[in-house]
Amino acid sequence: MVNRMNIALSLSYVGTQYHGWQVQKNGASIQETVTNAINKLLGCDTYLSGVGRTDAGVHARRYVANFKADCRIPLDRLPLALGAQLPEDIAVNGAVQVPDDFDARFDCTKKEYAYYVYPSKMRDPFLTDRAYRYSYPLDAERMQKGAQFFVGKHDFNAVRSVGTPVKSTVRTIFWCEVDQNNDGLIRIRVCGDGFLYNMVRAISGTLLYVGSGKFEPEDVARILESCDREEAGPTLPACGLFMNRLWYDHTPELDVFRLSE
Amino acid sequence: MVNRMNIALSLSYVGTQYHGWQVQKNGASIQETVTNAINKLLGCDTYLSGVGRTDAGVHARRYVANFKADCRIPLDRLPLALGAQLPEDIAVNGAVQVPDDFDARFDCTKKEYAYYVYPSKMRDPFLTDRAYRYSYPLDAERMQKGAQFFVGKHDFNAVRSVGTPVKSTVRTIFWCEVDQNNDGLIRIRVCGDGFLYNMVRAISGTLLYVGSGKFEPEDVARILESCDREEAGPTLPACGLFMNRLWYDHTPELDVFRLSE
Repeated sequence: MVNRMNIALSLSYVGTQYHGWQVQKNGASIQETVTNAINKLLGCDTYLSGVGRTDAGVHARRYVANFKADCRIPLDRLPLALGAQLPEDIAVNGAVQVPDDFDARFDCTKKEYAYYVYPSKMRDPFLTDRAYRYSYPLDAERMQKGAQFFVGKHDFNAVRSVGTPVKSTVRTIFWCEVDQNNDGLIRIRVCGDGFLYNMVRAISGTLLYVGSGKFEPEDVARILESCDREEAGPTLPACGLFMNRLWYDHTPELDVFRLSE
Repeated sequence: MVNRMNIALSLSYVGTQYHGWQVQKNGASIQETVTNAINKLLGCDTYLSGVGRTDAGVHARRYVANFKADCRIPLDRLPLALGAQLPEDIAVNGAVQVPDDFDARFDCTKKEYAYYVYPSKMRDPFLTDRAYRYSYPLDAERMQKGAQFFVGKHDFNAVRSVGTPVKSTVRTIFWCEVDQNNDGLIRIRVCGDGFLYNMVRAISGTLLYVGSGKFEPEDVARILESCDREEAGPTLPACGLFMNRLWYDHTPELDVFRLSE
C-alpha cells in the first residue's frame, strides 16, 4: 500500500557553488541537488517545490520546500539521513508532515531577505562570497532613514529587473531595517508579501547610494514614484543576499522549524 | 642606489585551500602565495618571515610577516597593490616600515588563538571549514571552569603532538577563556608566550571532553601533571582554529595594525 505524505523540509545553504534554486541546464542547482538526495534515499521520483527562486550565488538561512512521497523513514530521522547524501554547503534542518494541499511557495505569507555590505578598501577574506564590499564610506543611519520610504504598499517598478512577466508590480513591504555591527558590517533586512525580480538587490543598491551621499534619504520617495529603473541605484551582486526568515501564518505544522526567529 | 627597507605586513586569510603557512612541496602555502605576489609587484626575490607556522586548513584573523626589499611603492598603497595580486582568501590589511632587526616571529611577545566548536547533530553550511561540529551537547560553563587549569606556567607535554624537537615543553598561558554566542557557537581563546605543536587543538579537545561530561573540570589539572598525551582529549580538526590576536610589546611601529583588538 502506498502512503504518500506531503513533507516540508527546512533547508539552509551557501549558494556560491550553485546556479540558484531552480533546476538549470547549465549547472547544479539547489533544487536538483536536494531532489536527487531525496529520490536516492527514498527510492522515489518526486518533485521538490521551493518557497521561491533564489539566483546563482544567493544564500538561504531558512528555506522551505515540500515534496510528496511514500516515506518509510521516521520524519525525525529524515534530516540526518538526507544530510548524509548532501554536500557540506546544503543542510536539512527539519522535516515535518504537512496537509496534502500545502505548497511551500503559495502558503508562505511573508518573507524576509537580508543583504550584507561592508564599506572597506580592503577585502575581508572571511566575507568573500557572503557580503558585498564597497570601497567608500557608508552612513548606516542615513540608510536606515532612506529605508523607511520603501515601507508600505507601493509600485516597485523602479527597483526591479525585467524578468518573467508579472501581472502587477505593486507589493507590500512590512519593514526595511538597516543596522551595522561592531565590525562595520551593514545588514539591510526587507520583509514583504512578495518580491519582484532583483528587487532586494536594487533596494540595497539604492540604499547604498543613500549611505554614500549620492542620494538623500528623501530621494527614495521620488525614485519609487518615478517607476523608472534608471532613477534608482544599482542592482548589487548576489553574494550579499540571504533568504533570511519566512512566515507561514496558516500552517502551524511549520512552527517547529522556528523559521521567523 | 638600493635602499632595502624592512617591511611588516598585517595579513588575514581563510586557510581552507592552503597547505598551511610554510612553503610545502605538495601544494600552495600562504607564505609562497604572498611571497610570489611581493616578488612580482616589486621585481625582487625576497624571503617572507611569518609570526609562526599555521597548519593546513588553519585560518588567521591577524597575522604578521616581514620581508626586506627596495620598495618604490608608498607603503600606504602597498596593501591594495598586493591585494590585487592575491586570491580572494588572502588579504593584506596594512604595511609599515620596522627597524632592520625586527623579525615577525622572534619579536612577537604574546599570541592568542581562537578555536570554534558548535554542538549540533546537523551541519551549519555557513560554518563549514570555519568551526568544528560536535554531535553531542556541550556545557560552555563547565568548559570555562576547566579552562582555568591551563592558565599559568606548566609543562604542556600532555596537550601537544610530537613534531619538530623542542628544548622544553614548558610554556606560559596568560588566559584561556570559553564563551558561547546566541547561535550556540562556542569560542575557546588561548593566549600564551608560545605554543607547542597542536597544543591549542589538544587543549580544545580536552575542554570538549569537559563540556560533554567525559572529564570533570578539575581533571584538567591531573591531566597536565601526568605529562601523558593519552590522558588528555583528542586533537580537534584544523578547520576550527584561528590565529586571532598578536602582541608586539617592543615594536610600537605595529600599533597601527591594531593586532590585539
